[in-house]
Amino acid sequence: MNIREFQDMMHRIYFQRDSQRGKTGTYNWLKEEIEELSEALKENDQKALENEFADVLAWLASLANVVAVDLETAAISKYDSKCPRCRKVPCKCLFSK
Amino acid sequence: MNIREFQDMMHRIYFQRDSQRGKTGTYNWLKEEIEELSEALKENDQKALENEFADVLAWLASLANVVAVDLETAAISKYDSKCPRCRKVPCKCLFSK
Repeated sequence: MNIREFQDMMHRIYFQRDSQRGKTGTYNWLKEEIEELSEALKENDQKALENEFADVLAWLASLANVVAVDLETAAISKYDSKCPRCRKVPCKCLFSK
Repeated sequence: MNIREFQDMMHRIYFQRDSQRGKTGTYNWLKEEIEELSEALKENDQKALENEFADVLAWLASLANVVAVDLETAAISKYDSKCPRCRKVPCKCLFSK
């Protein structure tokens, strides 16, 4: 499934609700899912972990819909098969994250 | 671009570094990008906003690589073209987010 197809799916399912809630409320739910992901990372339940990753991606796509960002275009524009900073694969950045 | 293709791209570019850093450190960088996204949402710069969305997706995929989660499978398994809770499109959940 394309990143765009997934974002479109979130649009069909949730945009009515997401757009009414707005960007701040939707961002806050994304942040909550990030916290839940943190908890899942400490546990030993791979299925629960997958569930949280799915939720973070879903809320990221939902937020992207609210602020009219195309996730796929944004991601490909920046990452274009190599590190955007050092331009290498694998990344050879010094003093990096 | 498939979600999986993007995750594979992050693997080629960053896994060497991500795996050495580990899941906690990689999660912390994801969390930092979420904070940067929050700041970008307050501004009026669509390109900067797209940049932050790209970074969040990249770090989510990087973290998924570190903990061996397939983002695409996780997302499709849960969201399967309808709200996983009420099973409707659009979502008709009551007392929901």
